Amino acid sequence: MSSLLELTGLIAAGLTTFAFLPQVVQTWRSRSTEGLNLPMLAVLASGIVLWTIYGFGTGQLPVILANTVTLCLVAILLGMKLRDTLFGARA
Amino acid sequence: MSSLLELTGLIAAGLTTFAFLPQVVQTWRSRSTEGLNLPMLAVLASGIVLWTIYGFGTGQLPVILANTVTLCLVAILLGMKLRDTLFGARA
Repeated sequence: MSSLLELTGLIAAGLTTFAFLPQVVQTWRSRSTEGLNLPMLAVLASGIVLWTIYGFGTGQLPVILANTVTLCLVAILLGMKLRDTLFGARA
Repeated sequence: MSSLLELTGLIAAGLTTFAFLPQVVQTWRSRSTEGLNLPMLAVLASGIVLWTIYGFGTGQLPVILANTVTLCLVAILLGMKLRDTLFGARA
């Protein structure tokens, strides 16, 4: 794989991974997961797990990096949404 | 690349792509983009464009499929959020 392509992948990984940061920070600060959709988060998390396996299986650093970090961020959102769904949103 | 890995990538592509569908449908129906974060959508869209280039460059069907379709969905959200930001949310 050309280094330019690898660089493109790494920048893409950085962008799509940290695109989740504002959403996590906003949800954490507002303590509200109202705008988040539980099925979306669950399906997204499952897809990202598979992408991570795909990344390791094909030995592609950009895919591995993007998905392992995004998985952590999505897991935070999923955890907060599940807590609010199961135990009711905090006042 | 093994067909099992390719299948993993295709399933991952399907999951992470359609994970956006509920968010687009919810936003479309509610006419409200309040829960969406403009910087996140803009950064996400840019990252997905680069992932699409990376997918074509490395000839990987799962990466190409996932990102071209997700780009369309994110573009819808981005368009609605920009409209609300520029022209004010509809009553």
